[in-house]
Amino acid sequence: MTTHTVRPDSILDALAIELPSWAFGNSGTRFKVFGTPGTPRTIQEKIADAATVHRLTGLAPAVALHIPWDTVDSYTELKSYAADLGVRLGTVNSNTFQDDEYKFGSLTHTDKTVRQRAIDHHLRCLEIMTEIGSQDLKVWLADGTNYPGQGDIRGRQDRLAESLAAIYQHVGEGQRLVLEYKFFEPAFYVTDVPDWGTSYAHTVALGDRAAVCLDTGHHAPGTNIEFIVAQLLRLGKLGSFDFNSRFYADDDLIVGAADPFQLFRILFEVIRGGGLAPDSDLALMLDQCHNVEAKIPGQIRSVLNVQEMTLRAALVDTAALTAAQETGDVLAANGIFMDAFYTDVRPQLASWREGRGLPADPMRAYAESGYQEKIEAERVGGTQTSWGA
Amino acid sequence: MTTHTVRPDSILDALAIELPSWAFGNSGTRFKVFGTPGTPRTIQEKIADAATVHRLTGLAPAVALHIPWDTVDSYTELKSYAADLGVRLGTVNSNTFQDDEYKFGSLTHTDKTVRQRAIDHHLRCLEIMTEIGSQDLKVWLADGTNYPGQGDIRGRQDRLAESLAAIYQHVGEGQRLVLEYKFFEPAFYVTDVPDWGTSYAHTVALGDRAAVCLDTGHHAPGTNIEFIVAQLLRLGKLGSFDFNSRFYADDDLIVGAADPFQLFRILFEVIRGGGLAPDSDLALMLDQCHNVEAKIPGQIRSVLNVQEMTLRAALVDTAALTAAQETGDVLAANGIFMDAFYTDVRPQLASWREGRGLPADPMRAYAESGYQEKIEAERVGGTQTSWGA
Amino acid sequence: MTTHTVRPDSILDALAIELPSWAFGNSGTRFKVFGTPGTPRTIQEKIADAATVHRLTGLAPAVALHIPWDTVDSYTELKSYAADLGVRLGTVNSNTFQDDEYKFGSLTHTDKTVRQRAIDHHLRCLEIMTEIGSQDLKVWLADGTNYPGQGDIRGRQDRLAESLAAIYQHVGEGQRLVLEYKFFEPAFYVTDVPDWGTSYAHTVALGDRAAVCLDTGHHAPGTNIEFIVAQLLRLGKLGSFDFNSRFYADDDLIVGAADPFQLFRILFEVIRGGGLAPDSDLALMLDQCHNVEAKIPGQIRSVLNVQEMTLRAALVDTAALTAAQETGDVLAANGIFMDAFYTDVRPQLASWREGRGLPADPMRAYAESGYQEKIEAERVGGTQTSWGA
Amino acid sequence: MTTHTVRPDSILDALAIELPSWAFGNSGTRFKVFGTPGTPRTIQEKIADAATVHRLTGLAPAVALHIPWDTVDSYTELKSYAADLGVRLGTVNSNTFQDDEYKFGSLTHTDKTVRQRAIDHHLRCLEIMTEIGSQDLKVWLADGTNYPGQGDIRGRQDRLAESLAAIYQHVGEGQRLVLEYKFFEPAFYVTDVPDWGTSYAHTVALGDRAAVCLDTGHHAPGTNIEFIVAQLLRLGKLGSFDFNSRFYADDDLIVGAADPFQLFRILFEVIRGGGLAPDSDLALMLDQCHNVEAKIPGQIRSVLNVQEMTLRAALVDTAALTAAQETGDVLAANGIFMDAFYTDVRPQLASWREGRGLPADPMRAYAESGYQEKIEAERVGGTQTSWGA
Repeated sequence: MTTHTVRPDSILDALAIELPSWAFGNSGTRFKVFGTPGTPRTIQEKIADAATVHRLTGLAPAVALHIPWDTVDSYTELKSYAADLGVRLGTVNSNTFQDDEYKFGSLTHTDKTVRQRAIDHHLRCLEIMTEIGSQDLKVWLADGTNYPGQGDIRGRQDRLAESLAAIYQHVGEGQRLVLEYKFFEPAFYVTDVPDWGTSYAHTVALGDRAAVCLDTGHHAPGTNIEFIVAQLLRLGKLGSFDFNSRFYADDDLIVGAADPFQLFRILFEVIRGGGLAPDSDLALMLDQCHNVEAKIPGQIRSVLNVQEMTLRAALVDTAALTAAQETGDVLAANGIFMDAFYTDVRPQLASWREGRGLPADPMRAYAESGYQEKIEAERVGGTQTSWGA
Repeated sequence: MTTHTVRPDSILDALAIELPSWAFGNSGTRFKVFGTPGTPRTIQEKIADAATVHRLTGLAPAVALHIPWDTVDSYTELKSYAADLGVRLGTVNSNTFQDDEYKFGSLTHTDKTVRQRAIDHHLRCLEIMTEIGSQDLKVWLADGTNYPGQGDIRGRQDRLAESLAAIYQHVGEGQRLVLEYKFFEPAFYVTDVPDWGTSYAHTVALGDRAAVCLDTGHHAPGTNIEFIVAQLLRLGKLGSFDFNSRFYADDDLIVGAADPFQLFRILFEVIRGGGLAPDSDLALMLDQCHNVEAKIPGQIRSVLNVQEMTLRAALVDTAALTAAQETGDVLAANGIFMDAFYTDVRPQLASWREGRGLPADPMRAYAESGYQEKIEAERVGGTQTSWGA
Repeated sequence: MTTHTVRPDSILDALAIELPSWAFGNSGTRFKVFGTPGTPRTIQEKIADAATVHRLTGLAPAVALHIPWDTVDSYTELKSYAADLGVRLGTVNSNTFQDDEYKFGSLTHTDKTVRQRAIDHHLRCLEIMTEIGSQDLKVWLADGTNYPGQGDIRGRQDRLAESLAAIYQHVGEGQRLVLEYKFFEPAFYVTDVPDWGTSYAHTVALGDRAAVCLDTGHHAPGTNIEFIVAQLLRLGKLGSFDFNSRFYADDDLIVGAADPFQLFRILFEVIRGGGLAPDSDLALMLDQCHNVEAKIPGQIRSVLNVQEMTLRAALVDTAALTAAQETGDVLAANGIFMDAFYTDVRPQLASWREGRGLPADPMRAYAESGYQEKIEAERVGGTQTSWGA
Repeated sequence: MTTHTVRPDSILDALAIELPSWAFGNSGTRFKVFGTPGTPRTIQEKIADAATVHRLTGLAPAVALHIPWDTVDSYTELKSYAADLGVRLGTVNSNTFQDDEYKFGSLTHTDKTVRQRAIDHHLRCLEIMTEIGSQDLKVWLADGTNYPGQGDIRGRQDRLAESLAAIYQHVGEGQRLVLEYKFFEPAFYVTDVPDWGTSYAHTVALGDRAAVCLDTGHHAPGTNIEFIVAQLLRLGKLGSFDFNSRFYADDDLIVGAADPFQLFRILFEVIRGGGLAPDSDLALMLDQCHNVEAKIPGQIRSVLNVQEMTLRAALVDTAALTAAQETGDVLAANGIFMDAFYTDVRPQLASWREGRGLPADPMRAYAESGYQEKIEAERVGGTQTSWGA
């Protein structure tokens, strides 16, 4: 129970977490998508909700788009609209899994025409990024197969490499392609980018403007995620995070909800590897599904969880830790590590917020703001957005 | 490579596998449901497809219904319709996961009114069973919670027990309630019937007309399913199977596709425990999703897989096996077991089929039958059925 | 961040955790067992170490024995020896996995003679229990098979039931047989008591003096252990805990080290289900391996972890929680639950200790006590105990 | 049930599988190592056993050594001894996990002196390789940590890279360093080379004489191993295999015993990626533990399993498969794939053997050879070898 010299205010000030536009729309499982009053019908309404999260927390200055879900006529106007609400447009997520022609793959499809369509979609995303000043093109592919023999594993990798290269040559200065990997789902036998090794190998082959996107829910059971974080930072290839949590598969629960200590360990390695340093271009993003809980406070809870764990991770007495590690004192080293995790940082964060004109308790502030009642009253009619629209 | 005295013809003759009506409708993941030409718009069309599978294989004399997906005005008429096509209506599957009021539970809900609605739905299913002469009411619940603290785990069990008891007292003579368990999904923290132990404890408490339903895809990674089969048969509580296969989670792939040897081991224990004996009331059923493959031949492939593996399992030289087991000759015992698995039973099964006036190769027979072309031409317009309709 | 009315002092006062004698001996993996200075050579030295843990924490009044590892000539003398050091002898753990004849099973062996030997060993354990006044006979079996076909799964269950019944009839008044289950290891295909359902079914068949032992490390990946706790308490069959933690398999790490939040959830259900109530006979025990960390402080750290989490679990505002659950306010319910978890209870526990004449910081007190230096100096020569001796 | 044009005789003729010397010694779990009559006391006896496997199968022309377990005074003599028995000495496996100083790491240790000792051990292995004409230095490290905070994940990677580089500069022409990865055990929190990505990144950094070793048992649950095979072959970095099988963790069961279809898929990708082509330098090796089964026939069974599955994999009608894949005919593609798997190749292999003067049934030939009786009679006294000696 050492008292730490708290220097991590600079880390807190630098912390910024992108919100995904789709987290404000409806989501669910293959069994059922439950609708909720007040759910946005448009990307503008999604941005308004995201801006509310930022206004109350000071943590979420950017909103990620999903194309074509968030397609608009004028991206310049959308950018201004967001700016007026105090946020900017962030990562652009491509989508090549909801058109019939992608049933058997997109960038990996055996049919060159289909591959080109998928490539073109990514080029369009890059154009949008230029229009809105976005840094990252995030490529998550649903490509894969369900049955042994259905596809040629090797051939699919070769085509993937070729397609990615075709996209990459249009990645402009100040832009990046981040390639997300996923263990399974929607493909149930082979996922074409199943692990960090695959994403790493492809992004190394592409070049410096390509990096890996790590979604915390996209791993095999038991995978040590903080190791991957440490390794990718070491290799200079950790581009971005999709934060969420899970007990079983890609459950997309609120970040930190399932295993808070894992989130602590991950953020410790992020800091250890320089991921929150001034010169870092690591992007932090949420990617969650609020299937049964309220969406806007769900996002507030999420960014607060990341903030709380970041502060705990920053509190680790690294000098003492190193000393204990070097003497092989396992219990002392673990004790120093756990001491930071068990420190209740909530009072300190409430002060930090008040010092910046933010509400001490953003969850309560949202509940008392009347915003939820307002959108439930106003957003009547139309079609609530969800993953499919 | 011993030659076996083949007595398992009686087992082959007795083998019957129920087809789920919903396997002929569209299905998919939370990301996308792909439609396919020829997909049924009505329960009648689903039954016609199922009857086609039976006509070509002789293995699938019954069709399971899902209520309310397969609701009709007259179940007597539906029964006749099926009979005219050569099949009967089988297990009735209840559904309490697609109404808004079930968002936080059905039989376990904290609100007594909601619980009663869910109970009433099951009573309605029992009435339908009486009308169509069905034996089994299959209860699979989506009930559960996504976040620690969201629900009272213990209280939910108590309410579940109470609700099941209320249903059970209406289970008539010759009827059974089979309670399915599932590891996770759609709930991502607690599933209210997560494992066989829970289903067993509840069905023991209910009485002799209750038993466990084992879905092969509903287990934790690495679970030894054949052990559960052996145990439940020993305890007299294995009511039915939902067959499918998986690499990761509840992938609902074609049975035997992911791990044929596991299917062999399961069927060996089924036979060993008397599950295919004349006096057994064990019900075998498929429960799969043909997301990317053709549905009708997908079902044909599935029942053939079960048949092939059943024959292999029946070929195990059990006398020699017992002798090897008792002398602790691990390699000999394993060798005897594997010998049956590695035996190519397909020629023998082709003969069996021809001896019964069935096509030797049902997959080819379907492809050449013109049925697919016919339904694609005829089933135009209307709304293709899927999980949601 | 509510302030709770802290009533859980009674729970703290009642908390008692048995220490396993073998935790003070050397342990390791199949690759290597590292010895450490000061490791006990005798059961007496193990008890002395355990008594030290209790003296510093007030949490560990009993020591569990492992027979034959802890065989002595006079158990009455051993009992007195322990009493003089301020602890008592607790659970007796049987061992039927280190004799050559048990290579292919003990209570499940095909050879009746071997089974009888294993039964006799348990009867001997019951006699020892009577001599030392121990309540629980813990049966953990290494029985199982490595290869499909090696053993008859069903036959092994039948023999297991028969052997357990033979033991059970000698379980005296005030005694219990607790049957531990384990997912795998040392058997790699079938474990004869692999899951709680199997242990439950056997102990129900045996009678009221039999119950289930839950080892937190003995589950499939992703298993929701707190659900099992809640279910077994509801069914009246949770006999005891073997506490430890794991990232992968049965890693036997310090309890709470791998997933502190899981320990919190488990202890919440223990309290919720009455497991720490005055009339509960639930036994809490550690079962860990200190392969690389110091053993005595490893045990101190472990009992402190259980104590800290118990207090956190007791802090949950259950009235508010129930209210939130009943209104379906997922975020509020989860928030109330997490609030207790994130509360830093260490200052409160330091006060509790000081109020009972215990050192405020037992880890530091041990380091400063000179005990470690003393045993390292004194325990020279002889053979250090480990799992095999 | 197509008939295939069988061209895979060339593949069969090329197939060669290294046997690990330690498979002939005793092995077990942390709970118990069972000894067996006839177990070798010396490396010479191990080689004699391995040569017996090769004499009966024609599949196992090389024996891998483990240093220091197989240390001898004269490696030249050992080489001659092996040659006289018809086999050669193969891969040299380093061992840095059984000395006390490696308790907290070897190549990754914080202490430079310890690291240097570990480096020196590898240099000694390289010398031995030169003496015996061995190609591969296999580096498997037990390095890792058991508790969060125990070690600096990032620092350990940096030291690993440095140590490997120090070894690599002594890897001579015609020699390779193959770096094995392992998910967990004996380390239970972080393994310093946990996945193929890590091994790949390190071996790419080292250079062309470094490659990845894939042990089939060293993955997270559900990992698609054939994907990794395909990917590493594509990247030119698959150096060697350690074959075995598992149901749960690193069970080290007989290859093909737990999931024969997985072995089939792996070997299909090996062939697909050129791993059995004339110019391939991919090394196939067994790495198993015969804890409960007879060791020599266990090795025979293992190489036969690899051979049988290789032939099945070679039987896949790849032209038809490609056609089905390109038309998106999932069931046809899967059917073609499964057809090869379900083909009983045992008669064909018996013929192949007889054509080469080998016994048609090597398992039977061994049983009838009298070899086992001979070694049981002769190998009396001395100390049976096991992992620790």
